Amino acid sequence: MAKDEVPELPWPYKKLSAEAVAERAYESYFQGACCYGVFASIIGELREVVGSPYTTLPTAMMIYGEGGVAGIGSVCGALNGAAAAIFLIAGAVEKSKREVSAAITRELFNWYAQTPLPDFRPVAAKLEIVKSVSCSNLCHVSVSAWCKASKCKSFSKERTERCGWLTASVAKRTVELLNASLDETFKVTHELSGRAQACVDCHGKGSRLENTRGMMECGGCHFRGELEHPATTLETGS
Amino acid sequence: MAKDEVPELPWPYKKLSAEAVAERAYESYFQGACCYGVFASIIGELREVVGSPYTTLPTAMMIYGEGGVAGIGSVCGALNGAAAAIFLIAGAVEKSKREVSAAITRELFNWYAQTPLPDFRPVAAKLEIVKSVSCSNLCHVSVSAWCKASKCKSFSKERTERCGWLTASVAKRTVELLNASLDETFKVTHELSGRAQACVDCHGKGSRLENTRGMMECGGCHFRGELEHPATTLETGS
Repeated sequence: MAKDEVPELPWPYKKLSAEAVAERAYESYFQGACCYGVFASIIGELREVVGSPYTTLPTAMMIYGEGGVAGIGSVCGALNGAAAAIFLIAGAVEKSKREVSAAITRELFNWYAQTPLPDFRPVAAKLEIVKSVSCSNLCHVSVSAWCKASKCKSFSKERTERCGWLTASVAKRTVELLNASLDETFKVTHELSGRAQACVDCHGKGSRLENTRGMMECGGCHFRGELEHPATTLETGS
Repeated sequence: MAKDEVPELPWPYKKLSAEAVAERAYESYFQGACCYGVFASIIGELREVVGSPYTTLPTAMMIYGEGGVAGIGSVCGALNGAAAAIFLIAGAVEKSKREVSAAITRELFNWYAQTPLPDFRPVAAKLEIVKSVSCSNLCHVSVSAWCKASKCKSFSKERTERCGWLTASVAKRTVELLNASLDETFKVTHELSGRAQACVDCHGKGSRLENTRGMMECGGCHFRGELEHPATTLETGS
């Protein structure tokens, strides 16, 4: 396959069973962790129902996203692997055509931050797992929230199992969104919270200050506890 | 190419010109943004000096990482694209062989957080760009730090240019690290800061609390301003 024979995006998609992908993601998690788990389960099913070009993909590359990229604790690997698959299936090189995949990805990230997870129990579950709300798309924040809810340690077998269920939950949700997009029934149901939107209204694109970017929950890191928003901001514009 | 014909990781690597990759990354940034810019520039050079299997990769998939994944502001796309390339070139499915790529990736992430960037000026630069230190691997934090240093807005043409230079800087550094790894001269020169390591010593793997994971700078989000570490933590163990 020569350079110019790589098929253009988006790659062909056929509706998948969200449950089948979720079970496969749980198994894949124990081979290559969270990012690989989501990506390889979706691509693995597509290899069977679509075939080429999915058969050419080195899915093992996505192991890199484990634990928020090489264990660094940044973006949740399950979300990172999902976002890559979403772009491959619903994205495009042309900027004007990227909004479909971006909308699906943002819906998934907001759902993840706002929903008690994991919400999928694999058939071959090894332990029972409690749910927690991460309020973030970051691995270390998500893990900390779950450790607090479960009273389990961050490198316990329970946490490993929890991230296996979470990988399955994210894979399932991703396939549901991709199926809805194919059916043209996709709708945004998880917006950025009102509190975070209020931050974006002053600091985001097109705002008065326009001094950051993003669509993440702000309150988890900023203005926690006794640290309040500077009272002088509106007066000084700083 | 059938499923089992996808070559196993790591894929073959030949020493590249870090400057040539950096210039290519700057150009690629204007086609597919930060994550694509780093990934496609490294893979693009490898298509020329190695050829197959790099010629089979849908590099456009990596557009997904733009602006901290679909503009969400999470992990810096340049770092995300670099980490994927590093795993493809220096990683492995076997857990025992993943440490090489993980060490390179962590070195890159710490270098990014601690170094005044961008530190590469493309030949075809459109504007002059000031440097800033992000103290983070997150897109929105990195952008905010640069906006403060430059007094430019986050969606200005200057910020776009800055992220182009940053994409080139990260691509250059990634190739330098991969070249050093090939030469067996790679050394860790950017450790997690002492302050963050002190946090990890109580909250990370194998610690007394073990209630989070990760290797990120903690101080940027936690215990800023007047919000201090809870005085009761050591007594209560909470």
